[in-house]
Amino acid sequence: MKSRIKLLDKILEKKKVDVFLFTSPWSIQYLCGYFFSFETGPSPFHAIPAALTVIPAKGAFLIIADNETAQLEALDPDINAIPYISYTYNRPPDPLKQFLNHLPEHINPTGKSNPRIGIEHGSLPYFISFFLRSEYPDLEFIDISKEIAGLRLIKDDEELSQIREATHLCDIGQASVMKYARSGMPELELFSCVRGDMESAAGKRVPIMADMISGTRTAEGGGNPSGRIINPGDLIMSDLTPCLNGYWGDTCNTMVLGKPRVQQRDLFRKIKETLELGLMAIRPGIRVSEIDRLMRKHLAPEGTYSHHSGHGVGLSYHEEPRIVPYNNTELKPNMVITLEPGIYLSDHGIRLEHLVVVTTAGCDVISRFNHTFEQE
Amino acid sequence: MKSRIKLLDKILEKKKVDVFLFTSPWSIQYLCGYFFSFETGPSPFHAIPAALTVIPAKGAFLIIADNETAQLEALDPDINAIPYISYTYNRPPDPLKQFLNHLPEHINPTGKSNPRIGIEHGSLPYFISFFLRSEYPDLEFIDISKEIAGLRLIKDDEELSQIREATHLCDIGQASVMKYARSGMPELELFSCVRGDMESAAGKRVPIMADMISGTRTAEGGGNPSGRIINPGDLIMSDLTPCLNGYWGDTCNTMVLGKPRVQQRDLFRKIKETLELGLMAIRPGIRVSEIDRLMRKHLAPEGTYSHHSGHGVGLSYHEEPRIVPYNNTELKPNMVITLEPGIYLSDHGIRLEHLVVVTTAGCDVISRFNHTFEQE
Repeated sequence: MKSRIKLLDKILEKKKVDVFLFTSPWSIQYLCGYFFSFETGPSPFHAIPAALTVIPAKGAFLIIADNETAQLEALDPDINAIPYISYTYNRPPDPLKQFLNHLPEHINPTGKSNPRIGIEHGSLPYFISFFLRSEYPDLEFIDISKEIAGLRLIKDDEELSQIREATHLCDIGQASVMKYARSGMPELELFSCVRGDMESAAGKRVPIMADMISGTRTAEGGGNPSGRIINPGDLIMSDLTPCLNGYWGDTCNTMVLGKPRVQQRDLFRKIKETLELGLMAIRPGIRVSEIDRLMRKHLAPEGTYSHHSGHGVGLSYHEEPRIVPYNNTELKPNMVITLEPGIYLSDHGIRLEHLVVVTTAGCDVISRFNHTFEQE
Repeated sequence: MKSRIKLLDKILEKKKVDVFLFTSPWSIQYLCGYFFSFETGPSPFHAIPAALTVIPAKGAFLIIADNETAQLEALDPDINAIPYISYTYNRPPDPLKQFLNHLPEHINPTGKSNPRIGIEHGSLPYFISFFLRSEYPDLEFIDISKEIAGLRLIKDDEELSQIREATHLCDIGQASVMKYARSGMPELELFSCVRGDMESAAGKRVPIMADMISGTRTAEGGGNPSGRIINPGDLIMSDLTPCLNGYWGDTCNTMVLGKPRVQQRDLFRKIKETLELGLMAIRPGIRVSEIDRLMRKHLAPEGTYSHHSGHGVGLSYHEEPRIVPYNNTELKPNMVITLEPGIYLSDHGIRLEHLVVVTTAGCDVISRFNHTFEQE
């Protein structure tokens, strides 16, 4: 990974900070490549999975729970890993204290009483702010959340490669839905087959957010797989959002089990048309509100959808730019967005979604599967 | 759910607080029954999934992201749910502000400038402390983390019932390992089958922490399932730790695929003997360090294990009482603990684990599967 730490120089200058303290998992991964696997929830052994400090002209320091160091293979070589003792069986755990032991040296090595510390207002833990205030009574916290979000808006080559890999898992998953879906199968069993294929392809466990709903449940537009049995004639909506090494993919298909009703097939076609219309409109300089407007207008005869027309994807499954009526952001090359028009009627719903990279000429659709309504 | 809010009365008196502000997911679930599903990581739409305030003689208020309100079926009827706007497609998201809008009324309705607020030092977000300090300049934060941990040490009937249900999933999972394991199967595929059965039994997705390792990997004692192919003669270690509605189960078995070596079978027997010895020793009044000592001593001829002999289980998969050499806590009825002796040699390891409730007479082993070394 080519160091992204140097991207902080502009923020340093603009906000006049002495040191950065990053605590959001997204910023930490963006800046140094460390991904905290959240799938089993917050750890009872952690003060915080990790915090990243950047001291200009000195270095970058990832203070990290020692039971997380196995995850450091992707760490930027410019980053110094500082493990703190998270849990050991031969003395009482005290991860907050262990973490804080390492903080002074790696945040304010000169010990000045009034450092200006760039922080992320929404993710900084109180116990860190409390400790820092008692050590450095005249410190100032400078919120740099917006500046970091700005950096993440345009993806670099390595990020694009990671998002493509995650999106490849979506393609595998959508093919598996088409392959395994059969009458009499509970949604959960279908999901288990689909996830099994995606994890096999990844060679490891993969956190997956998934709407996997069938029949009348598709009218709700989303939901976890349940014990509901899939019956002939049911629609199956599969919105698959896997996280591979911290980067997300996101696609949605809706298919029918068995013979579709004419009305369902027509609706599928119209939504597919709307998605294609949206994709055709993507180019640098267009306002995302305009894409949103075009898609909603094209679908208007069928109804409306009370959600976004799409959203950015990267280290978060839902980030800027959001493709919504109020957002006049102009697209730029190497933004990554989904488009996902849908219609939800009283007893069924259909949504179709692709994931794309904005290019200089238009866009590259990186989800490669074809939206297909019927099994072969 | 019978309200646990009244358990706070003693803490109120002892610590002289005016109001409680809970921010740890474990305390929030313990006190009001709300479980935040962490499986897909932190949400980009949340300031915090929820915060719980308790104002003596006024009530308890769960300030919760509105996209989480579907999870409120388990909510204690004595709790008032106060939803904040987390995300809507027709205006820019601002969850921190939306959350804070609801805080003053539900933490300090009289507006006094010096409330004593009982908080959890390790989990309070800075943005909340910052807001409260600007509203109430003379406030005092009183850390009540230890008192809450003390309440959670003894499980009530409803908690025991929840832990039993989660542990039943472990039994199903261990039976599935025995049933599906075959030569040529990657660890990941075995895990997929096992998880599929556990989720089918639950009727929904279930977060699962799992060591699922085979062959020489068992020497490491733990690890996620990988693409490694299981071969004849390999040991398979399955430490299954599912979270059902917020409560965890935890058990471990180690089996052999095909014909065991004599040395392996002897080691399995010796560890099973050690586990049984530990279980026999469990009774109210015994110090957990004594149980730890007995088990280590019995296994000493085979080697040592550089981990705990067991630990508490409940809303966290690893909590007090930890069964470790330094811990002289005395067991009491309705504590829930695992015992998990293991031996790890150069090319293989074996660990066996049961989950028990301490009773007035001894203990009730609530994981019902039998540790079995060979397939039928």
